[in-house]
Amino acid sequence: MRKTLKAFSENLDSIPPADGKRSEPCVLLTRYRSVRRFSERLCKPLVNEDYVIQSMPEASPTKWHLAHTTWFFETFFLPAVDKCYRLFNPSYKYLFNSYYNAVGRQYPRPQRGLLARPTVAEIWNYRERIDECVAGILDSDPSLSSEAAQILDLGLNHEQQHQELMLTDLKHLYSCNPLRPAYDTCRFSGPTHSCALRFDHYPGGVHWIGHDGSSFSFDNETPRHRVFCEAFQIGSRPVTNQEYLEFIEDEGYQRPELWLSAGWESVQTKGWVAPLYWEKQDGKWMMMSLAGPREVRPDEPVCHISYFEADAYARWADARLPTEWEWEVAAQDAAEEGSFVEDGYYHPLPLRSGQNQGLAQMLGDVWEWTQSAYTAYPGFRPVAGALGEYNGKFMCNQMVLRGGSCATPRSHIRTTYRNFFPPETRWQFSGIRLAGDAA
Amino acid sequence: MRKTLKAFSENLDSIPPADGKRSEPCVLLTRYRSVRRFSERLCKPLVNEDYVIQSMPEASPTKWHLAHTTWFFETFFLPAVDKCYRLFNPSYKYLFNSYYNAVGRQYPRPQRGLLARPTVAEIWNYRERIDECVAGILDSDPSLSSEAAQILDLGLNHEQQHQELMLTDLKHLYSCNPLRPAYDTCRFSGPTHSCALRFDHYPGGVHWIGHDGSSFSFDNETPRHRVFCEAFQIGSRPVTNQEYLEFIEDEGYQRPELWLSAGWESVQTKGWVAPLYWEKQDGKWMMMSLAGPREVRPDEPVCHISYFEADAYARWADARLPTEWEWEVAAQDAAEEGSFVEDGYYHPLPLRSGQNQGLAQMLGDVWEWTQSAYTAYPGFRPVAGALGEYNGKFMCNQMVLRGGSCATPRSHIRTTYRNFFPPETRWQFSGIRLAGDAA
Amino acid sequence: MRKTLKAFSENLDSIPPADGKRSEPCVLLTRYRSVRRFSERLCKPLVNEDYVIQSMPEASPTKWHLAHTTWFFETFFLPAVDKCYRLFNPSYKYLFNSYYNAVGRQYPRPQRGLLARPTVAEIWNYRERIDECVAGILDSDPSLSSEAAQILDLGLNHEQQHQELMLTDLKHLYSCNPLRPAYDTCRFSGPTHSCALRFDHYPGGVHWIGHDGSSFSFDNETPRHRVFCEAFQIGSRPVTNQEYLEFIEDEGYQRPELWLSAGWESVQTKGWVAPLYWEKQDGKWMMMSLAGPREVRPDEPVCHISYFEADAYARWADARLPTEWEWEVAAQDAAEEGSFVEDGYYHPLPLRSGQNQGLAQMLGDVWEWTQSAYTAYPGFRPVAGALGEYNGKFMCNQMVLRGGSCATPRSHIRTTYRNFFPPETRWQFSGIRLAGDAA
Amino acid sequence: MRKTLKAFSENLDSIPPADGKRSEPCVLLTRYRSVRRFSERLCKPLVNEDYVIQSMPEASPTKWHLAHTTWFFETFFLPAVDKCYRLFNPSYKYLFNSYYNAVGRQYPRPQRGLLARPTVAEIWNYRERIDECVAGILDSDPSLSSEAAQILDLGLNHEQQHQELMLTDLKHLYSCNPLRPAYDTCRFSGPTHSCALRFDHYPGGVHWIGHDGSSFSFDNETPRHRVFCEAFQIGSRPVTNQEYLEFIEDEGYQRPELWLSAGWESVQTKGWVAPLYWEKQDGKWMMMSLAGPREVRPDEPVCHISYFEADAYARWADARLPTEWEWEVAAQDAAEEGSFVEDGYYHPLPLRSGQNQGLAQMLGDVWEWTQSAYTAYPGFRPVAGALGEYNGKFMCNQMVLRGGSCATPRSHIRTTYRNFFPPETRWQFSGIRLAGDAA
Repeated sequence: MRKTLKAFSENLDSIPPADGKRSEPCVLLTRYRSVRRFSERLCKPLVNEDYVIQSMPEASPTKWHLAHTTWFFETFFLPAVDKCYRLFNPSYKYLFNSYYNAVGRQYPRPQRGLLARPTVAEIWNYRERIDECVAGILDSDPSLSSEAAQILDLGLNHEQQHQELMLTDLKHLYSCNPLRPAYDTCRFSGPTHSCALRFDHYPGGVHWIGHDGSSFSFDNETPRHRVFCEAFQIGSRPVTNQEYLEFIEDEGYQRPELWLSAGWESVQTKGWVAPLYWEKQDGKWMMMSLAGPREVRPDEPVCHISYFEADAYARWADARLPTEWEWEVAAQDAAEEGSFVEDGYYHPLPLRSGQNQGLAQMLGDVWEWTQSAYTAYPGFRPVAGALGEYNGKFMCNQMVLRGGSCATPRSHIRTTYRNFFPPETRWQFSGIRLAGDAA
Repeated sequence: MRKTLKAFSENLDSIPPADGKRSEPCVLLTRYRSVRRFSERLCKPLVNEDYVIQSMPEASPTKWHLAHTTWFFETFFLPAVDKCYRLFNPSYKYLFNSYYNAVGRQYPRPQRGLLARPTVAEIWNYRERIDECVAGILDSDPSLSSEAAQILDLGLNHEQQHQELMLTDLKHLYSCNPLRPAYDTCRFSGPTHSCALRFDHYPGGVHWIGHDGSSFSFDNETPRHRVFCEAFQIGSRPVTNQEYLEFIEDEGYQRPELWLSAGWESVQTKGWVAPLYWEKQDGKWMMMSLAGPREVRPDEPVCHISYFEADAYARWADARLPTEWEWEVAAQDAAEEGSFVEDGYYHPLPLRSGQNQGLAQMLGDVWEWTQSAYTAYPGFRPVAGALGEYNGKFMCNQMVLRGGSCATPRSHIRTTYRNFFPPETRWQFSGIRLAGDAA
Repeated sequence: MRKTLKAFSENLDSIPPADGKRSEPCVLLTRYRSVRRFSERLCKPLVNEDYVIQSMPEASPTKWHLAHTTWFFETFFLPAVDKCYRLFNPSYKYLFNSYYNAVGRQYPRPQRGLLARPTVAEIWNYRERIDECVAGILDSDPSLSSEAAQILDLGLNHEQQHQELMLTDLKHLYSCNPLRPAYDTCRFSGPTHSCALRFDHYPGGVHWIGHDGSSFSFDNETPRHRVFCEAFQIGSRPVTNQEYLEFIEDEGYQRPELWLSAGWESVQTKGWVAPLYWEKQDGKWMMMSLAGPREVRPDEPVCHISYFEADAYARWADARLPTEWEWEVAAQDAAEEGSFVEDGYYHPLPLRSGQNQGLAQMLGDVWEWTQSAYTAYPGFRPVAGALGEYNGKFMCNQMVLRGGSCATPRSHIRTTYRNFFPPETRWQFSGIRLAGDAA
Repeated sequence: MRKTLKAFSENLDSIPPADGKRSEPCVLLTRYRSVRRFSERLCKPLVNEDYVIQSMPEASPTKWHLAHTTWFFETFFLPAVDKCYRLFNPSYKYLFNSYYNAVGRQYPRPQRGLLARPTVAEIWNYRERIDECVAGILDSDPSLSSEAAQILDLGLNHEQQHQELMLTDLKHLYSCNPLRPAYDTCRFSGPTHSCALRFDHYPGGVHWIGHDGSSFSFDNETPRHRVFCEAFQIGSRPVTNQEYLEFIEDEGYQRPELWLSAGWESVQTKGWVAPLYWEKQDGKWMMMSLAGPREVRPDEPVCHISYFEADAYARWADARLPTEWEWEVAAQDAAEEGSFVEDGYYHPLPLRSGQNQGLAQMLGDVWEWTQSAYTAYPGFRPVAGALGEYNGKFMCNQMVLRGGSCATPRSHIRTTYRNFFPPETRWQFSGIRLAGDAA
């Protein structure tokens, strides 16, 4: 699927993919610079104040993202290639450690917004210095060890994850502000195209699931293994705002029988009546986008909904969510079109004419909640050492999402990719693809 | 497995099993009386004050259990067989509704301990009246509909679940009291027998999992379906206190690398240093049992631990927990011995000599945490109507436990039975069986 | 004032007043028995379940009150008169210690409702045993030391405070129960009598305030000292339900300008729209009384309101609350009529014809919020030792109430008596007397 | 007292005092500019990031202070002098309203740190525009109404209060940062001078208390009225760090008998073991100052302590805190020396040689907790309209502090000035002056 990935947009940074063959240092350097530069590009629209604030415990200030992704290279890559490496600033080891107990104590996550210093300028400087160190090594070292190359690759994928978080965290931050600031004047998505939902059928059988190790993947995508899927069907495209509005108007948020017990409690205690960022004004549904407030467009995929809402919608629609292996089986056949962060829409796009065959938008646009809890694949072994804390220790009380979104870098996603969030999470670009049992 | 179930004890109530063939009303009546009488028998050691108190939001007062299980028959069975049935007390419909939104509003769960009235005597009276109604119908009606019989069966299994909860809730209540009251002078478990842990191996392959519908089961055990299990191995018996003590002494509760992230947070915020009900006195580990405080015995299965602790222990032991389908595959071959509530020990027993072949104690003694999140089987359909809320709406943020415990009625358990609790839960008799990948 | 105290009712227990002259042991014994017997009498209407439950952290189970008041004599009196006294049950020292750090650790207050044991019967037995010990000493000892007699007196006044709390805590408990149980069929208060509110004027000047030590008082009423009161006026009777209803209907609960900032926050976060225990049914205001639910009667003094509500009402009425010294100055002239717990109404009474001169109901009926924060009188010295914790350590964030209520024993109250509660408290029989500056 | 106020420092902004005679507009303009310029001067050491963050719900971001003080003039002054005044930005009316319900709804206080916009630059621009408007009016209007002049005066005093808060809020913010940033390199306080504590005696009698209205005061300082003070004595200077250390070393924080009940709860739940900002390093007490971390100096007045700590210290020292009227009576005789914000120390100074007669440091250096709850003076009437919300609605659960601090502008303080904070507050420069009853 990756090989024929098509570009929707011209302004895509050409980021050489991590392709599994251990790359030459010079290729790595190009890729390193390209990924790092993209983080900077995402900050272009910001004023200094935007970098500083943490709008909720789950989010982080932009400057923290910029520092933490740099910390990752400084902590894991530089010491692996330079035994004499000395820290840029010893206190950063503590301040920008997210959750790696093996590295040491961590500055408390909910207090990331209390750090007026280091300043944004100091963090840019930190990035520059670490970039120089990394570039110096990649320039000079013709024989990067396989382990070091893997860490570098991991660091770049890690930074790409934070690129997505930078956008979703900023969106949340702006949504708290009655002045309704916009991140950017986003690209216009063009005329929309209404298109009926179909279901594609798959027979039962044993399938291979997971990543085969021929290129970069996170450890949680491995090992490749077999699962038995009973026959199922899966929707041809994500659920749209129009369809979700019918659920709202049918009193979906008022009917406990549609909801998981914990979901119904969320509805009541949090007062949910619509997706996050929606607001009814003068009888019309408006929403916050990264381009500022605007009307809800009927043909766009619904997004910013929790697992609970996705599950309740599916029950209302007499369907269900796919398991993550059903999703992965189906994705292997799918067209590889979708909208990613480089396209600059910063919002999921309506289906285009011509996308009406096969499964559309499996990659990009919206993350798709599956009904699978995030857990270890059979035979899963986390990476040794501190980096083993990257994914494995979160395998509890989280649901798997698949496929990436309009805020995901294109070179970051693949069909085996497992994203995960607690079921009440709404600030990601998360949406719905329906599934069902065999008729 | 059920057919050769062996009795450890003489004082077992003989409760005719629900055997799938739709029973004659007279058999149902015998079974009804037997189950109901067992709830009463469990209350024998109590004083009036014990019935009233709710020691934590997750627990309920004994009198609430007695009323709610009665409410279940009054709400679901009696109207199904008597169109003119009139409620015993209309306010009970609200007071003793646990969580059935389709039945109506519910008195708030965390306030169940605020109800000084109805008194215990009034609730015994309520039970008597409903028992008379049910008996009247079963005596007189030679043609109980299949649906009505199923509701009755569900009501009896429901009451058996609450029998277990009555014991675990009372244990928790007594543990809050510095006077350390005992529930009963429990039977002595006899001399113990240390026995090395072995692992049995299973090859990979497709297996049928779930209940076949030939007898009673909960809806969440169906439909029977296929799963692919990669090769695995599973422990011959539950982990003992002795083994768990080694984990404690090896600083298991102080090493974050052994824990899931959410588990480590529980350790820190709740100050866990040992299983629930353990306390170190003068250098010796003591524990609360239903017979009062006593020493921790090395050969008993460890119990009252959370999923987080089970998972951390397994990681420390270089093993893992089984998936629920691995557990079920293995259980199909297992000896059917174990200790249940009727045995009157109210605590898991050490392995006996002679139990050293095959997999011991798969049923009874301790519930065994699996690494599987509680979720719907492929093709799962909840029962129609209010009873569909019984199981299906909890399929989120809970982990599956298998096999029953020393507080489970013997006729209540089976190898396809899926119990579930949030991963931080400790007040059930929950323990550990280890598993591993194929060598 | 005490000397001419008039009895409204015939069923008053005749409790000899603590009269300052150090009493003979035989008089003390009569008084001891009388006070202790009154606690028992208040329990007559209860069923066992009523004794056990704690309905909120501020309240205590009845059986806790019965045990704690006994503990007080056992802890402070018996060791003072019998150097060899041995504790009835050493664990009670901990369980029934309310807040005396000098005595030792305390079982946590919010968990008083978790104690199924000691049972009610065991606590009655505890009371009996301690009563025997006390009676034995008072019978035999012709020379009780002055200090011991003072402790006994304090213990009796302490028990009288808990008699009031038993009633208010039970009322709160019953109010949590949808079955709306009643404490008792209370006496009927007779025909009511509407009576206009007047204001009595007092010139400015220096006044002596506080207790002169000639009879029993709490330490917080001393030393007697001088205050300067600017000229003021004070209302002739408490504010009635009718008057308070006008405030409600004038949107008193919706207008922030009438409220203290902290009061307005209480209104909003707690959803106050009327006094505690009021509920609108079919357009009519109903209330919970200790005789069960009934209509709100217009001429009764309003009660179960917080300081915040009293203050807001006064502002709405273009008046203010009195300071505690204004109240005490005025009370010195007042008629000593009022309704107390022995009268058996368990609710404040409307003004009677004939009470229309001078200041009515200064004692009894409802506690009257003053605008004075509870603080030390100049020269205040708490009692030495553990009993110094009785009053002094609460001198922060509490407001003074004066005059006693329909739940206060008649022999317990006096014009210098200072009750105190946090300003959001509503479960006491607390009401309003208005005051104002000189015209 | 004000007339002989001595300057310790040369860099004092000369701010013409508000002197009660209704000033000419040109004098008002000079004073307006001077106060406004001082807010700007306090921001000189800041980087942009420092302006944005709210470190706790009680604190506000610097930029919020700058905007809110400007909003005050825009909301209350400009419409009073220009009926056609149009708001600079209508959304600011909501964003920068602190607590004035009569003005309209308020952006939630705990979320002031979520506002990335308006930017700091936009807020400076807002200030500039409002300053132009005000200056335009004061320049051109020879006949400012008395009411308008009073509002302007109030606005300037309001801004001075926020100047103090800017410093204390920044200090708290910096204290959350492991990098320990400093506000400024503060002036060095010079050699210190140890000086024994004396007590001055005052006989009992009636005193006039409160402000006489001849110059600016807040409404809560009025009306002037009489109080009777029993004979008392008061300490000659604030308690020093050295003295407070003796309390710590005598286990003051471990002995419940020294504390109010609510204070002891604070000690335990908040883990207090020393004043805020103190930290023991290698056996030595260090503290955060606005100049960064440094050693605790023995002769400086102790500061950053709560009312609870002040009260416990006084009890330990066999003394008590003064009432606010005792304090005010004593202050009328006191030397008017002290250190204020203009001196640029930003920390209370040790006593200087020569200050050893009479009562030293009654004004400046540290706010002094009194044992008086903040309540209305007899005859108190809040200002009419929205400005009546300034002080009156906080008269509950707060304690009065007197005298100003090293962060208070010199022209802002006077002996009748009543500051108030909840008793657990520690982030202000709050300290202790002891008092006692007559010997």
